[in-house]
Amino acid sequence: MKYPIQTLFFLFVISMTFTFSVAQDSDDETIKSIFDKALSEGNSYQNLDVLSNRIGGRLSGSPEAAAAVEWSKQLMESYNFDKVYLQEVMVPHWVRSDVEIARITGSPSVGNRELHITSLGNSLGTGEKGVHAEIIEVKKFEDFDQLTNTQVEGKIVFFSEPMDPTLINTFDAYSKAVRQRSQGPSKAASKGALAVLVRSMGLFEDDAPHTGALRYDESVKKIPAVAVSTNDATLLSDLLGKGEQVKVYLENHCEMLPDVLSYNVIGELTGSEKPKQYITVGGHLDAWDNGDGAHDDGSGCVQSIEVLRIFKELDIRPKNTIRAVMFMNEENGLRGGRKYAEQSKAKSEKHIAAIESDRGGFVPIGFSIDSDDKTFKKIQKWQSLFEPYNMHKFIKGYAGADIGPLKDQGVALIGYLPDPQRYFKYHHTNIDTFEAINQRELEMGAAAMASLVYLIDQYGL
Amino acid sequence: MKYPIQTLFFLFVISMTFTFSVAQDSDDETIKSIFDKALSEGNSYQNLDVLSNRIGGRLSGSPEAAAAVEWSKQLMESYNFDKVYLQEVMVPHWVRSDVEIARITGSPSVGNRELHITSLGNSLGTGEKGVHAEIIEVKKFEDFDQLTNTQVEGKIVFFSEPMDPTLINTFDAYSKAVRQRSQGPSKAASKGALAVLVRSMGLFEDDAPHTGALRYDESVKKIPAVAVSTNDATLLSDLLGKGEQVKVYLENHCEMLPDVLSYNVIGELTGSEKPKQYITVGGHLDAWDNGDGAHDDGSGCVQSIEVLRIFKELDIRPKNTIRAVMFMNEENGLRGGRKYAEQSKAKSEKHIAAIESDRGGFVPIGFSIDSDDKTFKKIQKWQSLFEPYNMHKFIKGYAGADIGPLKDQGVALIGYLPDPQRYFKYHHTNIDTFEAINQRELEMGAAAMASLVYLIDQYGL
Repeated sequence: MKYPIQTLFFLFVISMTFTFSVAQDSDDETIKSIFDKALSEGNSYQNLDVLSNRIGGRLSGSPEAAAAVEWSKQLMESYNFDKVYLQEVMVPHWVRSDVEIARITGSPSVGNRELHITSLGNSLGTGEKGVHAEIIEVKKFEDFDQLTNTQVEGKIVFFSEPMDPTLINTFDAYSKAVRQRSQGPSKAASKGALAVLVRSMGLFEDDAPHTGALRYDESVKKIPAVAVSTNDATLLSDLLGKGEQVKVYLENHCEMLPDVLSYNVIGELTGSEKPKQYITVGGHLDAWDNGDGAHDDGSGCVQSIEVLRIFKELDIRPKNTIRAVMFMNEENGLRGGRKYAEQSKAKSEKHIAAIESDRGGFVPIGFSIDSDDKTFKKIQKWQSLFEPYNMHKFIKGYAGADIGPLKDQGVALIGYLPDPQRYFKYHHTNIDTFEAINQRELEMGAAAMASLVYLIDQYGL
Repeated sequence: MKYPIQTLFFLFVISMTFTFSVAQDSDDETIKSIFDKALSEGNSYQNLDVLSNRIGGRLSGSPEAAAAVEWSKQLMESYNFDKVYLQEVMVPHWVRSDVEIARITGSPSVGNRELHITSLGNSLGTGEKGVHAEIIEVKKFEDFDQLTNTQVEGKIVFFSEPMDPTLINTFDAYSKAVRQRSQGPSKAASKGALAVLVRSMGLFEDDAPHTGALRYDESVKKIPAVAVSTNDATLLSDLLGKGEQVKVYLENHCEMLPDVLSYNVIGELTGSEKPKQYITVGGHLDAWDNGDGAHDDGSGCVQSIEVLRIFKELDIRPKNTIRAVMFMNEENGLRGGRKYAEQSKAKSEKHIAAIESDRGGFVPIGFSIDSDDKTFKKIQKWQSLFEPYNMHKFIKGYAGADIGPLKDQGVALIGYLPDPQRYFKYHHTNIDTFEAINQRELEMGAAAMASLVYLIDQYGL
């Protein structure tokens, strides 16, 4: 019996449709089993409790960072991942002092008044005598260029541009405002300022100052810099707005010590078909010392470990090698991310994709993909599989700092996107603590990442 | 000059397309201006602070409920809404007692041990002597039907079915489990039980018991009922699972007092074209007495008021009359919702739509629409306008309790959908407080509701 060619084609289409729909169904089911596991028997929340409350803040070079390295290594070993090892990296070792003072002095309106501040990461200190000077406000970063050296010399420059609350992607508001913190101090120093006050990179009016790294321009004198809470920044702007000459006394004793040996911590499930091809999922292990780094980025670490744990629990044998990487020193140097990419290059490792979770442990809304068009479209097609979990935002965009250095090896970079509305309340503050984490949100993030790793592993990119 | 008919049709299509695209652009802009206003100069957060922290928990019939009525009336008057008035409604007046005790007695494993409980709303008390009896566990609600009167008589029935953590819409898990609380007490009494313990309707393992209303079947003896925290429910299940005979001493003195006169509070912006057509947006003013009702449902109240305030601030004159309604007694009677619909019917008011916010003050993800197909499709088409605000879920479904009684008047009912992951940590507990509210999430919800009201007002349904 013979079929005409049209019939054969028809049967082919039918069979392909069937195959495709079976694949989709089984992907649906696998993803559901991943979410079920994370939400009913997840470990990420209890692990984050230990990292946040037993270890706490863990800036590069600190004893706590060393504890976090040992803890995450032991944790992954306890899960019997196929390999667990450390990757050496020299990191900067910046330390804060107990004394951090900023005080308005002799104001006609408020007299002497303490401000809520925190030293910026990498800042040097004022010395024992502190700095006592008039402040000059820079309402928009660009405006600084209009100031003359005479206007700035001998003063404390106060960068006061708030984050834009109307931007729905709060990270856009952060990107726009953060140069005040990162570049402001050297800018100010270039015209003879004595120190810098920066309005905290926060979207809420409160008393919690937000720290974060500054980047000194090596060609300019280094001056001390601190962030002031949004409430106190508003107070300063108000006083200056009334025409007061505002003087501030500033004192802190932070300092940069010599580099310290530290580690990226890596766990692996070995690929069954292509063990030399890697899919990396990671977060950064270091965290600012003022809080306990639960959102930034304890979440990303425990979620990445949870991805591999769920694979094992569900007996999903990956084709490619899946790596969970705890990067060291994202906050004030990015040495870990750079070292990882450098080693990957040196060993000619082929990474298919790298996924980073570093936007807090909030409810998942999607992924931000930094890749070529073809890869982007392939990933975007999977979006419908994530819709039952309210994930709808599969967009082209920035992926993450730690995986960034892999870009020139042609790796598809993917940033996990949680909902961004609450992040800039906690980011780099003393209230970025375990109490600010919701268990289900954290677990759903881990499941979202595991599901994407599963699809990439199954179908390639 | 004459055009052939095809050309005319072509021109018609072009002009319609143009009109449509201009309308879309201007809707985009209006919606953006609404979100901008809510996020940069919103009042909802500061209003919720007052309602939560100055007034607090406000169960129907309480002095706090009366304060909330007066406060919301004065607030809307201070905003110069066109009309602000009270709608009388008689409400139940249930009161809790200071004494609420549940104690495991003489357990071989834990000895005498206090449990974290809260009386269920509408429950009567145990009397001064309390109830001291063996508990019998019902692991699934259906299982109760298998028990004989002899097994149940003289015992405390413990309904222990947990909420299903794998359901992404946590309200589905709530709907499935909540009959243990609402129907369980009379079920148990029908077979001679002395009292009821219910595992809290909570999705997290913690010590905060969740209250909520029970509904007595009038044909059966009324017995006291309390909710026990999820942690303690798990403890009880574990003890029983080990084969222990567990005895519990229960004492509380809550009671139902005579009905009290209370009010729905209504504010209006009068329609410029069709003042006798109404779009209602509302939440419920009453809240359980253990927390301060910030999420349930202070959020819905301040958001509804904010909708009208933003219209005024942006000088948007509605064609139809827009009403903000603070419904009274959603929690343990729904008298306010019923009264509102009854009055609407009596006065032959034509409601185009009613929107309710009663799922917490979390980040908006969409709307749940209870209407005919045509109306649903019309609303669904607007979804793209909300995508810049991460709102993607325009679904058919249940809208809300307070607006429910309007259904038989053919009103399109719409439930505001915030993200549901965190709600069942706070719901009906002592940690449903202002501290659990994020300002931006609350504000975005108000903006989402205002934007939908704007579109309905502009284009009808």
